[in-house]
Amino acid sequence: MSTTEFQLIDAAVEAAGAVAGFWAASAPSVRSGLLRGLASGLEQYQAALVALADEETGLGAGRLNGEVARTAFQLRGFADEVEAGVPYQTIDDQAAAGAPPVGRPRLTRTHEPLGPVAMFSASNFPFAFSVLGGDTASALAAGCPVVVKTHSGHPRLSRAVHEVAQGVLDGMNLPGGLLGLVDGASRAAGLHLVAHPQIAAVAFTGSYQGGTALWKAANERRRPVPFFGELGSINPLIALPGILERDSEALANTLAASITQGTGQFCTSPGVIVLLDHPASDRFVAQLSAALQPIKTHRMLTPGMRNGFDAGVAHLLASDAASQVFEPLADSEGPAPRLFKVDAKAFIEDANLREEMFGPAAVVLTVESIEQATAVLHAIGGSLTATLWGFEDATDDTRALLRAARQIAGRVLFSGVPTGVAVTHAQQHGGPWPASTQPQSTSVGYAALQRYLRPVALQDAPAWALAQQGAQP
Amino acid sequence: MSTTEFQLIDAAVEAAGAVAGFWAASAPSVRSGLLRGLASGLEQYQAALVALADEETGLGAGRLNGEVARTAFQLRGFADEVEAGVPYQTIDDQAAAGAPPVGRPRLTRTHEPLGPVAMFSASNFPFAFSVLGGDTASALAAGCPVVVKTHSGHPRLSRAVHEVAQGVLDGMNLPGGLLGLVDGASRAAGLHLVAHPQIAAVAFTGSYQGGTALWKAANERRRPVPFFGELGSINPLIALPGILERDSEALANTLAASITQGTGQFCTSPGVIVLLDHPASDRFVAQLSAALQPIKTHRMLTPGMRNGFDAGVAHLLASDAASQVFEPLADSEGPAPRLFKVDAKAFIEDANLREEMFGPAAVVLTVESIEQATAVLHAIGGSLTATLWGFEDATDDTRALLRAARQIAGRVLFSGVPTGVAVTHAQQHGGPWPASTQPQSTSVGYAALQRYLRPVALQDAPAWALAQQGAQP
Repeated sequence: MSTTEFQLIDAAVEAAGAVAGFWAASAPSVRSGLLRGLASGLEQYQAALVALADEETGLGAGRLNGEVARTAFQLRGFADEVEAGVPYQTIDDQAAAGAPPVGRPRLTRTHEPLGPVAMFSASNFPFAFSVLGGDTASALAAGCPVVVKTHSGHPRLSRAVHEVAQGVLDGMNLPGGLLGLVDGASRAAGLHLVAHPQIAAVAFTGSYQGGTALWKAANERRRPVPFFGELGSINPLIALPGILERDSEALANTLAASITQGTGQFCTSPGVIVLLDHPASDRFVAQLSAALQPIKTHRMLTPGMRNGFDAGVAHLLASDAASQVFEPLADSEGPAPRLFKVDAKAFIEDANLREEMFGPAAVVLTVESIEQATAVLHAIGGSLTATLWGFEDATDDTRALLRAARQIAGRVLFSGVPTGVAVTHAQQHGGPWPASTQPQSTSVGYAALQRYLRPVALQDAPAWALAQQGAQP
Repeated sequence: MSTTEFQLIDAAVEAAGAVAGFWAASAPSVRSGLLRGLASGLEQYQAALVALADEETGLGAGRLNGEVARTAFQLRGFADEVEAGVPYQTIDDQAAAGAPPVGRPRLTRTHEPLGPVAMFSASNFPFAFSVLGGDTASALAAGCPVVVKTHSGHPRLSRAVHEVAQGVLDGMNLPGGLLGLVDGASRAAGLHLVAHPQIAAVAFTGSYQGGTALWKAANERRRPVPFFGELGSINPLIALPGILERDSEALANTLAASITQGTGQFCTSPGVIVLLDHPASDRFVAQLSAALQPIKTHRMLTPGMRNGFDAGVAHLLASDAASQVFEPLADSEGPAPRLFKVDAKAFIEDANLREEMFGPAAVVLTVESIEQATAVLHAIGGSLTATLWGFEDATDDTRALLRAARQIAGRVLFSGVPTGVAVTHAQQHGGPWPASTQPQSTSVGYAALQRYLRPVALQDAPAWALAQQGAQP
């Protein structure tokens, strides 16, 4: 990292800092206008951007066009939130006469945008978790400028999307500092960005190792700032014998597709399949194997990720507690899908067996009891999702497993597969550590904008001061 | 710290862990019944408890009876929140047909209590921020058991209040594990408590040094947990010449009382008075001195706090940038009030001049411009409060200072003094680091219970699973 590169980072942050006050005070129509303009800008250049993204990521035009649609949808969704007044919401407690605790002054709860947000793009969503992705959309909606750190997996796309965004800002006479871009693959660049005194919050989606290094840097600042990091998840799925007796083949096909979707490079990819010791479970594993084995995958996002996946596979192959359910076929462009059986007791005891394998693989655990299934969930700990199949009825067993699932996950599914995260008000994409460094926040869905607002109570405020905190819509 | 003491801590946490599931699923009537029972229990034994508290803290019966009233008020206030269904609130997004991003499954946003909370009592509120204080009330309301670490300043009171609480639990056939108590003044005891794997969140009010040590321990766990810490605040107050020309004597008397209230041992004690260079400011300083100098204080809460205050005074006395506005009179039971003038430029540049003096003292800064006043606020950084006197009208000056105040403080006052924090829905008691380690949370007011809830989205949940997440009121 040269001095010049540090200077470019400083310049981007200072440009964001210079416009933070303007943007915090911006009217709803200006803020939503920008978000809608950015959505339209993406669509205007969609064909060229998707071609560039496909070149850099290999994710394919179908998937990438869908991702642009999702990214534009959520930019417009946050524009709707702004127009509905969400970032400007207040709670007003009138004064009450008398001595405390009953007597009190007038208090109005308002929200202050935190300030410039450092946003680290993810590798696996070059649109939806990158330059104009959910973190950027929610921060801009909340009233915060953003400085994007590009991901080394798609640097040209990042610059191209940033150019589109700068064109939109120019066209609306808005300052370019509202959306900065910082290049550079080095860890030093990321640490320098997080340490900058004008950065007020950090959003990160990526690896445990990279994420914890940045999280530590945020905590080691003279004034630590909120760090919203998504650091990994192995997404357990429990299928009870009852549902497998009824419907196992369709479920096996659905699950095989989910495990291999995007060559398994989804943070919500189901990584651990928990089954009870039962003939229906055995049949399901055979069906899952048959569905999984022939699936062709596209290449992984970066050589580093491919190396990481191969290392994870080698680790399990070397373990006495793990065995392959089937011999993988030859690799296609991407690695051949893998399925491992891991001894449940060993899985509970050995954290090395519980590491995320980012790629088209899953492990199957056969548990001897509901208690052991519960122990598996607790051993996994923080997870973005937990999927419960066959939980239509309340029994002691389903109640106990739901309780455990709620304790470890941000989203609990009762049907379908965890890949695919809808952008809605109820959505929660986060979970206890390491799924999120701030488990009470979400990085997908409209609640994501709350990450960038800090409550400020105004006591006995004059009318002008109440109006100042963002023009009321 | 002996092995036995560690074992007692472990036992308290494990007892809390054993009842966490029961309490998370408890019906509103049971939860609010306990909170109301605890309020009544405090009142039933109020005379004896206040006498004991006065012996240990020297805060005086008047203040302590008021504090019991506040503590009972907020226990009942959180009971009202529970009965209104706040911890059980959900957001329901119906399924939508079609392909993503429009098409989506049904999602219901629910909230899961985090689990056992380690709560560190404060020295300066032996009732309201101690065993049955706001942290405990809000955690119990949210559905979390609490393990209280007593403060060494009032150990006997802590045990007595805990006995009252255990009597209430017994009388309602509720498990004692809902409210544990951990004795022991050592730092090792606190670290052991925070590191316990079953602790799911930490609440702390106290010193910067002690708080950061515990915060680091929470972050160094194998699975870090949310740490809600209030670590200090110097609470700037800006008085513009206009209001001082009209009303300076009354304001001086009010401010002198606030600086010395409780011998200055309030986290919201106004520590920095910022004045513009103006004859009205000079007159105000003279009036403040006249009001402050003769005030008698009661003894400080602990010898350690007294030593800390004396060291802070000595530090300023030795500084070239600081001078005393008046010679203090002889100490009464507590230290004589002090007022310092500090050079504004030096204050901005030297963090040592900005350290919190916990006790009856404040510093006066005379600034040469609104810009310099703004720089003072930014140098102070995170603060629980900022008080703005003479801000009735919107001008460029008042707008600029309000913006700076909003950026650094959790509460901005336009009249009165920051000591005294009403328990309401709009209240915000927190602020950027070091006022709070989680600046988006509050430790006073009804929003405090949100600290202990984590969103969990249920996807396509059957009816029984929606009912399980806490009985709907």
